[in-house]
Amino acid sequence: MVKSDSELHKVALEYLEQRGVTLVEIAELVYFLQEKYIDDISMEKCLDHVNGVLRKREVQNTILTGIQLDIMTEKKLLENPLQEIIAEDEGLYGIDEILALSIVNVYGSIGFTNYGYIDKVKPGVLKRLNSHQNGEVHTFLDDIVGAIAAAAASRLAHDNPEISDIMK
Amino acid sequence: MVKSDSELHKVALEYLEQRGVTLVEIAELVYFLQEKYIDDISMEKCLDHVNGVLRKREVQNTILTGIQLDIMTEKKLLENPLQEIIAEDEGLYGIDEILALSIVNVYGSIGFTNYGYIDKVKPGVLKRLNSHQNGEVHTFLDDIVGAIAAAAASRLAHDNPEISDIMK
Amino acid sequence: MVKSDSELHKVALEYLEQRGVTLVEIAELVYFLQEKYIDDISMEKCLDHVNGVLRKREVQNTILTGIQLDIMTEKKLLENPLQEIIAEDEGLYGIDEILALSIVNVYGSIGFTNYGYIDKVKPGVLKRLNSHQNGEVHTFLDDIVGAIAAAAASRLAHDNPEISDIMK
Amino acid sequence: MVKSDSELHKVALEYLEQRGVTLVEIAELVYFLQEKYIDDISMEKCLDHVNGVLRKREVQNTILTGIQLDIMTEKKLLENPLQEIIAEDEGLYGIDEILALSIVNVYGSIGFTNYGYIDKVKPGVLKRLNSHQNGEVHTFLDDIVGAIAAAAASRLAHDNPEISDIMK
Repeated sequence: MVKSDSELHKVALEYLEQRGVTLVEIAELVYFLQEKYIDDISMEKCLDHVNGVLRKREVQNTILTGIQLDIMTEKKLLENPLQEIIAEDEGLYGIDEILALSIVNVYGSIGFTNYGYIDKVKPGVLKRLNSHQNGEVHTFLDDIVGAIAAAAASRLAHDNPEISDIMK
Repeated sequence: MVKSDSELHKVALEYLEQRGVTLVEIAELVYFLQEKYIDDISMEKCLDHVNGVLRKREVQNTILTGIQLDIMTEKKLLENPLQEIIAEDEGLYGIDEILALSIVNVYGSIGFTNYGYIDKVKPGVLKRLNSHQNGEVHTFLDDIVGAIAAAAASRLAHDNPEISDIMK
Repeated sequence: MVKSDSELHKVALEYLEQRGVTLVEIAELVYFLQEKYIDDISMEKCLDHVNGVLRKREVQNTILTGIQLDIMTEKKLLENPLQEIIAEDEGLYGIDEILALSIVNVYGSIGFTNYGYIDKVKPGVLKRLNSHQNGEVHTFLDDIVGAIAAAAASRLAHDNPEISDIMK
Repeated sequence: MVKSDSELHKVALEYLEQRGVTLVEIAELVYFLQEKYIDDISMEKCLDHVNGVLRKREVQNTILTGIQLDIMTEKKLLENPLQEIIAEDEGLYGIDEILALSIVNVYGSIGFTNYGYIDKVKPGVLKRLNSHQNGEVHTFLDDIVGAIAAAAASRLAHDNPEISDIMK
């Protein structure tokens, strides 16, 4: 039977929490991306848009799948060579970026730039996720978190069309 | 360390075989898609292009990841609700299509149509993969096989530009 | 200045009408795609979802751009070889499919299959658009119309999760 | 009749030149993206990979279409509101990013990050293209140039798998 939206939503939020990512940290990424463009930006507004993104079923499905792969890899349950590829966050792998794009896509193409930028600069929580400490694997999660932030930034821009002129 | 192309290629072929899909069956899908457009089509030519697609690293990565998820689901190793979603090949899931698209994309957008068509009509091996017999899970594999066939059909069309006029 | 949603919406509807495509014809494609899955399907419901898709800015932008290219080509205003490529709806061109995908993407990956299927089978209005009569050019429009229908079918499925189980 | 690869290749190169973009400038973007990762990087190597990207038909088609739209807009030949939207490089438009993604896609998902980064930071030629001087319109071209550079960086990484480990 198809899962209800509310069940998937709840599980997706639990997964993020379980993996040590707070919605406030994702909202901080949105703030980082948009502060130069929006005068009356606030953490509250950023958080609202993060929540909006997380209510989308495509986003929930991607969170569940990506984090499941991270966990399986941490537990060394995958077969080689995939186990090593994901554990080492190998540069030519690319499936993590593909899943991330499916999140960015939901709010249209204007999020691509923000996703790429944030993934390269790795501010805040992205730096921590990417540090590969203590045997933790966040190969999928770091791209997913960046994609949620980029999608939330697009959602914010759609709500403030006058801003998006400056954004470009 | 980054895996060599030849290692990934070998494993991808083994995975397909292990899951009961032969390259000849994929070539038959290419033949099905292109026979009305190409006079001198042959199974040999179709097989050549399937092999060409399988030499691409993106394709190999997708095969490894998708089949790994199918196997984990068959072994009931995923957490719920993801376990049930993939086991039941739930209609709103969509991550299987996203992975498939990453294969089709490699040979450009002209493959989208063939991928969608074949996934809907489900000729040959796709029908068997989709029958969900004996507790087998092929939620990712059926989309991947359709995508490889669609990509091979694009590759064939790129090699025969005069044909692609009729294809459209 | 950024255009308002309502202005873009109005122009997109006018463009479709001007090019001879009615919303009822697009709703018929949705009906064609979903009638086997939904007991209480109605043309009214299909039309509602077509209208929902057309309220999205990404969709409006794609309609405006694609139809503009069709019109320019009809008026022979493009430079060669692009003029000939679009006029002849050349099989290896692919930019029309890329624009169409941007519409399908808005409602997630489950629309890809329907888009590909309908583009290949060409029921109803798609057959007429593809007939290249009287010097008319609909290279972009036929893919756009198919994409709107596929997106509306996804939207309908998201509203009826129990149906989407059968759809797969 | 389908155009030959060599004809499209020649025209795509002429278009770039005509619009004031040299292949050396695109190679400089590749150098900018990869210099921290590759010890023996050289402008010659970067240029080789830019040339490799430009031999792909999908890339040629995107160049022809995007630049044609820029030129038409410069000549004020488009209908409103599209004319104004492209002339002002409006932030919510997004079709320019969609076309750019079709270039990045050809070398797989690992290019998304570089595309987004470079489009945000706008080094070298991208800054000039984005300055909107003298009534010039480069709404599509600046994204296309960034996408070619990102694709060439991916191509370079695929050729140097040991490097791509560090890249991530």
